[in-house]
Amino acid sequence: MATEVEEILKRIQSHKGVIGVVVLNNDGVAIKSTLDAATTTQYAGLITQLADRARSMTREMDPNNDLTFLRVRSKKHEIFIAPGMIFFATLFAKYFVISNEDPK
Amino acid sequence: MATEVEEILKRIQSHKGVIGVVVLNNDGVAIKSTLDAATTTQYAGLITQLADRARSMTREMDPNNDLTFLRVRSKKHEIFIAPGMIFFATLFAKYFVISNEDPK
Repeated sequence: MATEVEEILKRIQSHKGVIGVVVLNNDGVAIKSTLDAATTTQYAGLITQLADRARSMTREMDPNNDLTFLRVRSKKHEIFIAPGMIFFATLFAKYFVISNEDPK
Repeated sequence: MATEVEEILKRIQSHKGVIGVVVLNNDGVAIKSTLDAATTTQYAGLITQLADRARSMTREMDPNNDLTFLRVRSKKHEIFIAPGMIFFATLFAKYFVISNEDPK
């Protein structure tokens, strides 16, 4: 498992335009990160809150549905959030070609 | 303005795989919708909450940054949320080709 996470991190981080990768456990605690400690803690908290809200929204709309992927685009970058066993967030540079990077 | 909204609605709705389109005003109230009234009201409330959270997350990470686009993919469909003057959400069928539909 640890090796698997390391490999995913390495693969994502190697892509052009990737600012950082954070891997969270089910409690929203960062277990791996390429960002500094303060940023990691702040982002982990904010992203977990948003992903929880997106998941509850999806289930409220349809109890048989579930969240699979969340993307937050801003003026400066894009955050990709994939909840599940390995929950990770990647921050891509603006204008990054999204379709090549979608882990689904 | 009304005509502009109508045209956007019509254009999006004509795309293959589009389930529905909802246009919200700045207060999160649906001003146009192709969904039934009950679904529109429920979705408008949930989507506004999520978009507000995504916007505050983006600004908390960086006060000079701002949300431009939000995508929520689930097992059954994908919701596209574009905040701004015309705030609209579209629900696409699963496996819909996203890159062709991104209004940005």
